[in-house]
Amino acid sequence: MSTIRVRSLLQQCTKATLRLQDESEVTINRGMVIFVAFLKDAQLDDVIKLAKEIATVRLCDSENGLKTIVDLPGDLLIIPQATLGGRLNGHRFQYHSNINKDVGLEFYDKFVATLRELCSQNKDNIIHAGSYGIRQIYSCETNGPAMHIIEF
Amino acid sequence: MSTIRVRSLLQQCTKATLRLQDESEVTINRGMVIFVAFLKDAQLDDVIKLAKEIATVRLCDSENGLKTIVDLPGDLLIIPQATLGGRLNGHRFQYHSNINKDVGLEFYDKFVATLRELCSQNKDNIIHAGSYGIRQIYSCETNGPAMHIIEF
Repeated sequence: MSTIRVRSLLQQCTKATLRLQDESEVTINRGMVIFVAFLKDAQLDDVIKLAKEIATVRLCDSENGLKTIVDLPGDLLIIPQATLGGRLNGHRFQYHSNINKDVGLEFYDKFVATLRELCSQNKDNIIHAGSYGIRQIYSCETNGPAMHIIEF
Repeated sequence: MSTIRVRSLLQQCTKATLRLQDESEVTINRGMVIFVAFLKDAQLDDVIKLAKEIATVRLCDSENGLKTIVDLPGDLLIIPQATLGGRLNGHRFQYHSNINKDVGLEFYDKFVATLRELCSQNKDNIIHAGSYGIRQIYSCETNGPAMHIIEF
């Protein structure tokens, strides 16, 4: 964990809803939810690499085997989740390894922009992203979340 | 990742529902969802240690700060999720590090039994556990999932 710079959790969904900072809600249908945390050693290159890995990983069930989210085509919901960077110490989690909030916001915006660009070749899919730094009020329905972690 | 023996993902929820092998559904209310994967180097001691850490970690929001799931008191939904043991290789995940299925089932049953025992001091909370080895049809509502990983 000490050497990890980015950590993401990928979850398949049939529907997912998230509340934004202005209290409006966004909803996606069949696709993928991405929870992401940046640790303090993260660099901009890591952010771009992570977005590329997520856009190209074959995780989505289809009649023709596993497809990428772009090829499915499926929707995408990106949720900042700094708690993923926490580390258990005794009976509490500590967040000493998490990135500074200002840099975290910058990286998050870059991550979202890169994923939007990589996935924009398919015009039918919806891409939504949560607001950074707020409580993520979230609900989902799945046909099997098939949770996967990408971290490095 | 190569040295990890167990990996769990803890998510706070206000409601969560899971389909079981017999196609019945179980539902919990306010509490915690636990996704768990055992890797091939896992030992029985690891399984018990993980259950103890989950039962005693202070992660649940309350008026008096963070509480354990037992003290909240909150419900518990345990979901086997072998995909959490996957490792990205190129554009696909590989599962070479996952435990043998028979041992995995034995460890999962022990994990559930230990958590049930540790959390049974409060009679008001509900503890449900998913069926091992099937697709986990799952939905949840959260007031902020506050996802945390415990792995070792």
